[in-house]
Amino acid sequence: MSGQRAHAGPVRVPAAALEAFVARALGAAGLGAADAALVARLMTRGDLVGADNHGVFRLPQYVERIRAGGINLRPAIRVLRESAGMALVDGDNAMGHLVMHYATELAIAKAASSGVAWVGVRNSNHAGPASLYASMPLECDMIGLYIAVGNANHMAPWGGTELLLSTNPIAVAVPALEEPAFVLDMATSVAAYGKVKGAASRGETMPEGWMIDRHGRPITDPNRSAEGSLVPIGGPKGYGLALAFSLLAGVLNGARVGRDTVDFNADQATPTNTGQLVVAISLAAFGDVTTFKRSVDRVIRDLHASPTLPGFDRVRVPGERSHAIRVERERDGVPLHPALLARLDALAASLGVPGVRAGT
Amino acid sequence: MSGQRAHAGPVRVPAAALEAFVARALGAAGLGAADAALVARLMTRGDLVGADNHGVFRLPQYVERIRAGGINLRPAIRVLRESAGMALVDGDNAMGHLVMHYATELAIAKAASSGVAWVGVRNSNHAGPASLYASMPLECDMIGLYIAVGNANHMAPWGGTELLLSTNPIAVAVPALEEPAFVLDMATSVAAYGKVKGAASRGETMPEGWMIDRHGRPITDPNRSAEGSLVPIGGPKGYGLALAFSLLAGVLNGARVGRDTVDFNADQATPTNTGQLVVAISLAAFGDVTTFKRSVDRVIRDLHASPTLPGFDRVRVPGERSHAIRVERERDGVPLHPALLARLDALAASLGVPGVRAGT
Repeated sequence: MSGQRAHAGPVRVPAAALEAFVARALGAAGLGAADAALVARLMTRGDLVGADNHGVFRLPQYVERIRAGGINLRPAIRVLRESAGMALVDGDNAMGHLVMHYATELAIAKAASSGVAWVGVRNSNHAGPASLYASMPLECDMIGLYIAVGNANHMAPWGGTELLLSTNPIAVAVPALEEPAFVLDMATSVAAYGKVKGAASRGETMPEGWMIDRHGRPITDPNRSAEGSLVPIGGPKGYGLALAFSLLAGVLNGARVGRDTVDFNADQATPTNTGQLVVAISLAAFGDVTTFKRSVDRVIRDLHASPTLPGFDRVRVPGERSHAIRVERERDGVPLHPALLARLDALAASLGVPGVRAGT
Repeated sequence: MSGQRAHAGPVRVPAAALEAFVARALGAAGLGAADAALVARLMTRGDLVGADNHGVFRLPQYVERIRAGGINLRPAIRVLRESAGMALVDGDNAMGHLVMHYATELAIAKAASSGVAWVGVRNSNHAGPASLYASMPLECDMIGLYIAVGNANHMAPWGGTELLLSTNPIAVAVPALEEPAFVLDMATSVAAYGKVKGAASRGETMPEGWMIDRHGRPITDPNRSAEGSLVPIGGPKGYGLALAFSLLAGVLNGARVGRDTVDFNADQATPTNTGQLVVAISLAAFGDVTTFKRSVDRVIRDLHASPTLPGFDRVRVPGERSHAIRVERERDGVPLHPALLARLDALAASLGVPGVRAGT
């Protein structure tokens, strides 16, 4: 198959075909049909917005975890505690996408009456890109905010060497009127761990500033990543943010953090008890929705119209790149690297379902 | 007076004397007695926790602004909009401390019934250190979160040269049981602008990485700070965070951001329409309060017990330094630099009130 030659380019797969494939793979792995369809939709949305390390790329890992008994295939996701401005959800060790979809829908429903609603979850799992859940409230004229505790500790505290922290990400999504929404999705480390793995797989070196070893010296060989720590943004500040997010999305929800973190790469069977939180903020509670969105447009346009540093063609706003990628991929399909396609074909064969190129 | 020699050390002033001085100075400047007392208490608390650039250091600037007519001395701070999980407060151009004290009390009261409450403000002003309002909920067994739009733009967007952003700070305070509370208080730039001014006043150079000029080259001479931009933490990430905070604490509240920002150093008379937000999160809404605090203790102790990089004596947790400073200053008094004491004495003379060393 020419698409799988070592240096062949990516193969475009229509989003609908990708989604259908993920749904049948998850269904064959044991998820109920409705759950498989929902996870497939959310995973595909990750690929559509360019979160290539958090979409279908994760499917083999998810199926491996399901096969190891690490995921509850018949979960009872439920509200443990609830007040007007918050809820605490028990994900019952379901696929993280199902837990966070439930939590975000709940936050949106509560914010519609309470103005702002904060929903925390425990007993969840990896749920794809952070932007997914921060962006869900956009369609309801709400701002979304999402914070997660990561599923593997790749970061030491500032001044320390023990990997006690994940690169806990935050996402914030704010609707605009005519401009694409502002969507920030960032880890609290200078480089996400996926970028390190990417450099390793391409045989590239890393720039100084991404990782340090146990003596505080830069690591530039990504194959040495196990010897060191990712560097938090702004040094002690990024460490402080990552720790704050551990407390807000982890400890407050009764989820695992720090030494108790289950490394989801090393241990497929133990429930991760992942903690996440989502906040929905209704624009209508604060004032006129269109006036707000117009003001966001203006902020974005002022940034776009502002002068640039040498080497930059324009000032960018978080969310515009992923918006452009989504437009392009909805039209042309999701580009899948031949190596990934081969892994997905092997997965399909092992599950006894048609592969991703079989179409919908 | 020996305390005012150029190289003399700081003079210790009891917190009660400092607070009494600030109250009489603000009262003489025109604030009502109760308002003056409250602002004095909050400003002194800033000095007690070591926020030396955001406590009594700001008093001459505040009085100058009051004299220029830039502050409403008889404000009607009020709730503009309210739902169970949020409120929008109009600060009526009062001293920022009064606005944020009102907003934080409101957030705490609302969170007591709604579990979580988000309160945004418009028409506010500089309110001292961010940690002040994030920490107020601690005494009520609540987590506090505070975000503010700064009152001067010292930061360009990533890839740009126009100073369209302030170094919008965030503070998060989380109660522990036996350990000091976790209190993070950070600007979204590598160095706060106050550190640049501090380096200039001491005749020191700045390390590379704090500021860049319009060509993207490092500025290390703090006297050249007007030629450039503070550098956001993590490059595009800190820019994204600062912009997110502009939208959440500024645009959402109908406050000024970006090109509309009133530089409170350059313009003393125009209302700043500063935007801030505070979130109070009731621990009891999420579960057992003591269990939560014990878990926070454990996270902190794991960090303290973890091994260090060369050059670090121990891993620190945000909030422990300010806690230690508070213990020491409550016991020994607040150290005031002779130059600051001289400015405060001159201010006292101009207001016709006894100086800070006159006692309570």
